[in-house]
Amino acid sequence: MRAPTASLVVVGSEVLSAKVPDENGPWLAGRLRQLGVELRAVATVADRLDEIVEAVDRERRRVGWLFTSGGVGPTHDDLTLAAVARALGRPLVRHPGLVEAYAALHRRHHGGAPPPDAALRMADVPEGTELLGDQGYPTLRCSNVVMLPGVPRFFRYQFDRVATLLGGAPFRLAVVFLAVAEEQIAAPLAAVARAHPRAELGSYPQFDGGDHQVRLTVESRDLGAVERALAALLAALPTEAVLRVQGP
Amino acid sequence: MRAPTASLVVVGSEVLSAKVPDENGPWLAGRLRQLGVELRAVATVADRLDEIVEAVDRERRRVGWLFTSGGVGPTHDDLTLAAVARALGRPLVRHPGLVEAYAALHRRHHGGAPPPDAALRMADVPEGTELLGDQGYPTLRCSNVVMLPGVPRFFRYQFDRVATLLGGAPFRLAVVFLAVAEEQIAAPLAAVARAHPRAELGSYPQFDGGDHQVRLTVESRDLGAVERALAALLAALPTEAVLRVQGP
Repeated sequence: MRAPTASLVVVGSEVLSAKVPDENGPWLAGRLRQLGVELRAVATVADRLDEIVEAVDRERRRVGWLFTSGGVGPTHDDLTLAAVARALGRPLVRHPGLVEAYAALHRRHHGGAPPPDAALRMADVPEGTELLGDQGYPTLRCSNVVMLPGVPRFFRYQFDRVATLLGGAPFRLAVVFLAVAEEQIAAPLAAVARAHPRAELGSYPQFDGGDHQVRLTVESRDLGAVERALAALLAALPTEAVLRVQGP
Repeated sequence: MRAPTASLVVVGSEVLSAKVPDENGPWLAGRLRQLGVELRAVATVADRLDEIVEAVDRERRRVGWLFTSGGVGPTHDDLTLAAVARALGRPLVRHPGLVEAYAALHRRHHGGAPPPDAALRMADVPEGTELLGDQGYPTLRCSNVVMLPGVPRFFRYQFDRVATLLGGAPFRLAVVFLAVAEEQIAAPLAAVARAHPRAELGSYPQFDGGDHQVRLTVESRDLGAVERALAALLAALPTEAVLRVQGP
């Protein structure tokens, strides 16, 4: 019943310097949730080789799938492919299938001329990289690292081409809306969390003037675990504290 | 001229599981940019003690200021204060000033009753923590770690109470809009980037159907460095490639 796990490394000087907001992290979080894959971390790092290497090396060791976002273009600040190669201890090699894909793309947009060297730099990938999905716009996978482009439209397209590989099953979620503050239910909540380790219990205070003060979440890929923890929670909370229950 | 540096650790199982989007990362990126502080990384981790400890310990060593977001409430999934204490090698101690602040808040909302034990758990902070800013809603600082609440309204309020401590000076930015694709300007761009290391050059392809194909950015806290790199860039690019220039 353990969910497959994933992390995301966003190669994003433009995000850190507030030039553009990252759309890929929130989108991937939602998509992985639908697929039943547990997202363990999102690390946004600068376009610096050593920092990308460190983040990729750290995350890929502790999760089933590591996704990277951005840094796969032809310019000097595109360092992701080299960083993944270094993190995996592999050389960069020019991939004939990628050369062909980029040459075809170039022909379509620029007529008969061959692509410049800079474009071919995008075809230098960690040794052993496989081209998955759409062979015209292939998704790059090497070991457990999937290297996706930063442009949100392409990130989503290439991710969705490999989504079925991930092997998840959906999470089940129940939400309890409370009329009291967190501090008043912290003790029973902690007791239920301890007694039901297979369900994940979260507590989120609300300060937006809605009807409830706290939203409690009970979540697991195991529906029975959610139902048992929810029943224990409702038995442990003061009756007047509970406004309503949604799900699972 | 080196900018002060910062990182952000978002303690955010709710973000990773797509229950709520993180608003604090994007907001802090923009605010630090205005203040002239370089944001080096944003790490979003789960509400697990060991993972928060690891991220805090890693980031606080390489930046001037580490901010944390979330995990400072009274429930079992609020682990940030304990994690920061462990990362800094300090014990958790009950802070009399915080006990007083929370007791005053509790009195205001709940009448004369003393706050429950769970609320006082929020007053257990790493030894040596200082209360800065508004003493009614104090900002917690221990060594170079500033522990902020996850609720965006409170995160912003408490950050802004300590913003003047950070000691930055604003970045200057020029943007060049190009009518050609990245691969066609990668070589001159790389040459200018190498020759002007004090300016940071970024290249961002656009696929949104606007009038330009690429946005180049030239950025530094040193206006002269931006102006020199920009002049070199405009000299190196084909004239017909440049649509317009904004700034610095």
